Amino acid sequence: MAQLMEDEVFRAFTTYAAIVTLKMMLMGPMTAYFRITRGSFTNEEDVARKSEEEKKKLLKSHPDVERVQRCHHNDLENVVPFFFIGLLYALTGPELSTALLHFRAFTAFRIFHTIAYINALPQPSRGLSYILGTLVMFSMAYRVLSTVFVL
Amino acid sequence: MAQLMEDEVFRAFTTYAAIVTLKMMLMGPMTAYFRITRGSFTNEEDVARKSEEEKKKLLKSHPDVERVQRCHHNDLENVVPFFFIGLLYALTGPELSTALLHFRAFTAFRIFHTIAYINALPQPSRGLSYILGTLVMFSMAYRVLSTVFVL
Amino acid sequence: MAQLMEDEVFRAFTTYAAIVTLKMMLMGPMTAYFRITRGSFTNEEDVARKSEEEKKKLLKSHPDVERVQRCHHNDLENVVPFFFIGLLYALTGPELSTALLHFRAFTAFRIFHTIAYINALPQPSRGLSYILGTLVMFSMAYRVLSTVFVL
Repeated sequence: MAQLMEDEVFRAFTTYAAIVTLKMMLMGPMTAYFRITRGSFTNEEDVARKSEEEKKKLLKSHPDVERVQRCHHNDLENVVPFFFIGLLYALTGPELSTALLHFRAFTAFRIFHTIAYINALPQPSRGLSYILGTLVMFSMAYRVLSTVFVL
Repeated sequence: MAQLMEDEVFRAFTTYAAIVTLKMMLMGPMTAYFRITRGSFTNEEDVARKSEEEKKKLLKSHPDVERVQRCHHNDLENVVPFFFIGLLYALTGPELSTALLHFRAFTAFRIFHTIAYINALPQPSRGLSYILGTLVMFSMAYRVLSTVFVL
Repeated sequence: MAQLMEDEVFRAFTTYAAIVTLKMMLMGPMTAYFRITRGSFTNEEDVARKSEEEKKKLLKSHPDVERVQRCHHNDLENVVPFFFIGLLYALTGPELSTALLHFRAFTAFRIFHTIAYINALPQPSRGLSYILGTLVMFSMAYRVLSTVFVL
């Protein structure tokens, strides 16, 4: 095992990074589930065996499919910077307790964000979980840039 | 050179990660190619020198451009978690042969996925290559979380 | 602090990776700003307190919002491979001056790309900054694959 993995903070980062990445990956099957149950596809080859009439109906967009896709896209826009900033942050050697606080908070906000998005919970539930998750990342980025700065 | 690069598994990860990232990056020029040959643009400044009539025609969407964009987006949704999970996986110190199996399988499925998507090959070619690629990532994520788990 | 962070090239990578990631993250608040000032939303729960008539108006797309979203998406398509390739490149132990040249050039091109996109500057300003940024990444990828290649 690489030396990095002997570092407790790096192991914590690995755990939470894997969890939020898996959460993001689950949006793929969830999109497929909504596509099938709502009967809404985008690619012609996905409905090739259907009659012409059915094809027309199945190739229409559906609000539920579009919602889960927006949620997936929002995950990309947030989990990607979390991984980038979080990885660099873990390498700056922060206190384990401080690092865990950051990783746990981001993970919790992101999971709540998905629940709020998919179920269309009243605002500001979704907006707030996005903003708080972003603040966690800014806090980590501040530590990274104030520790390591070679312009 | 960093010590990490002396590790055979990490070198293998580096090779395959670079290959799938380059493959994903090639979707950019491919989109440009389809935009130009199909005459389909999105930004007004891209068709600024044309006549008003031509502009209207050129600013319409085209199914081939949308297809390559969906393919690019799907790459983002899959290559991103592969890099995240794969990097952490490589650091857990797996057997070289097992690691190579994972990296090679994912890379092959992803390249096949692009071919199936761009050429609109009959299903389940595209769906299957997506599912198999995802299973490879789940297998690596299982190893990561079972080796390193600090909640 | 991890040993990696004692390496000058890795510290330079960390600095520029954090900067472009933060730049990408700022596209989120910028989208929110355009949504609010242009009155253009996508999710019904975001306009829940408005009258039925207002809702209809607010749930329409607006070209400025779509433009900033395309810019954000383009960032994802470019900052993601920069982080992947750049991280691996930094680990191959290049000369500090060469590495800085790559990181600085990519960062400058990406910031200019955003300015050109949001302000719809005449082409080829946006196209050129995209192409030059991509060439920087290809140059780093070449170094990665020619140094470390385990197929």
